[in-house]
Amino acid sequence: VGTGPGDPGHMTSRARQALEEADVVLGYGTYLEFIKGMTGHAEVLAYAMGEEMARARDALALAGAGRSVVVVSGGDPGVYGMAGPVLEALPGHEGIQVEVVPGVTAAVAAAAALGAPLSADFAVVSLSDILVPWHVIDRRLRAVAAGDMVAVLYNPRSHGRRDHLRRALDILKAHRSYTTPVGLVKNAGRPGQTVTLSDLGRFDPGLADMGSTVIVGNSYTFIRGGIMVTPRGYAP
Amino acid sequence: VGTGPGDPGHMTSRARQALEEADVVLGYGTYLEFIKGMTGHAEVLAYAMGEEMARARDALALAGAGRSVVVVSGGDPGVYGMAGPVLEALPGHEGIQVEVVPGVTAAVAAAAALGAPLSADFAVVSLSDILVPWHVIDRRLRAVAAGDMVAVLYNPRSHGRRDHLRRALDILKAHRSYTTPVGLVKNAGRPGQTVTLSDLGRFDPGLADMGSTVIVGNSYTFIRGGIMVTPRGYAP
Repeated sequence: VGTGPGDPGHMTSRARQALEEADVVLGYGTYLEFIKGMTGHAEVLAYAMGEEMARARDALALAGAGRSVVVVSGGDPGVYGMAGPVLEALPGHEGIQVEVVPGVTAAVAAAAALGAPLSADFAVVSLSDILVPWHVIDRRLRAVAAGDMVAVLYNPRSHGRRDHLRRALDILKAHRSYTTPVGLVKNAGRPGQTVTLSDLGRFDPGLADMGSTVIVGNSYTFIRGGIMVTPRGYAP
Repeated sequence: VGTGPGDPGHMTSRARQALEEADVVLGYGTYLEFIKGMTGHAEVLAYAMGEEMARARDALALAGAGRSVVVVSGGDPGVYGMAGPVLEALPGHEGIQVEVVPGVTAAVAAAAALGAPLSADFAVVSLSDILVPWHVIDRRLRAVAAGDMVAVLYNPRSHGRRDHLRRALDILKAHRSYTTPVGLVKNAGRPGQTVTLSDLGRFDPGLADMGSTVIVGNSYTFIRGGIMVTPRGYAP
């Protein structure tokens, strides 16, 4: 189940219903905070970051024992969320019914905070190299740059990855004008949301933290009156 | 405001609240069907497809006259939706407050129906060449293919664009194995949802209609037990 970005207003009614009806709710601590008071009679089990496969296995074991189990993800569970680990761990657990309940992912929550930067084709790339080697991420960023697609960068920074965002922006800079708009949203769609608008030439990657989403425009994106927009239509 | 993909269960509470409080609700007829009975006291104005800029201008004129106006988009308003036209038309309408209310976009609704194909980096590309020339779409598809990103194809088919999906798949085929999974979802996240799983070698583009979303896996994506999954982690 996707909790959405954090503000309960961005949660879907299907997600709320699943939480209310659950026997057990499992999730990373931060996401469990988002849904406090919404879990009805459920037992709530908190996990640390990095324990995704343990969460998936425990969820399937509990469901196999006949309980109605909800695994929560921030945003949408399919975008770097728990839908993957749960479905990867599913073989051998025949008879368990799994439903993926979609949610508002950070890309669209951050876009809504900035204006309308995703009105044209875009790519979502995570800068975390915990599970994916950097050379794969590098290759994808080069492809996004070559295709003049709007780039949505997830996980732009964390402990031990202080340099990834600067490297990613350098790749985009090699293909795009220094005046290309860059939008940084901290806490997109949750309390404490802040927006920073800049461009590729001036943006300071040091501003990003673990709760940030960064959107880099394509060659048509503009900022006007504090709003970042990628026009849908192109002059022929 | 994003209505989500169509099933009211996938609508957010912020979107529902905006509809209930609106004086006027504007939108394309199909999306107005999604929100029937949710618009409180609002006057509801239906528009045809193609009248996006008229919708945006009318919305701003009504808001300028002091009314609380909601423009609805299917899915998320920022992803090829009405947030762009409204914000593009905003200059000259000072004093109007615009809020973009995010929603569940077709990419994540279709992914949820298929399993977890978006657990890795992905790109969203519209195959409609009404507003964007085909050579731009072609360039983006080549970039997505080169970057081994999961591809989410919006607007795969419509009247007068019967051949675009086949051409898009041919571009991906040039870079990916014929056994690469392809998932087609009709009516993702709304009544009448159907799922078709295939691969690049065997998929029939003729199956897609205007209400379809097509997701093509990357080189790690697999189908097992009727579920399409892109693993998040990669063997080093």
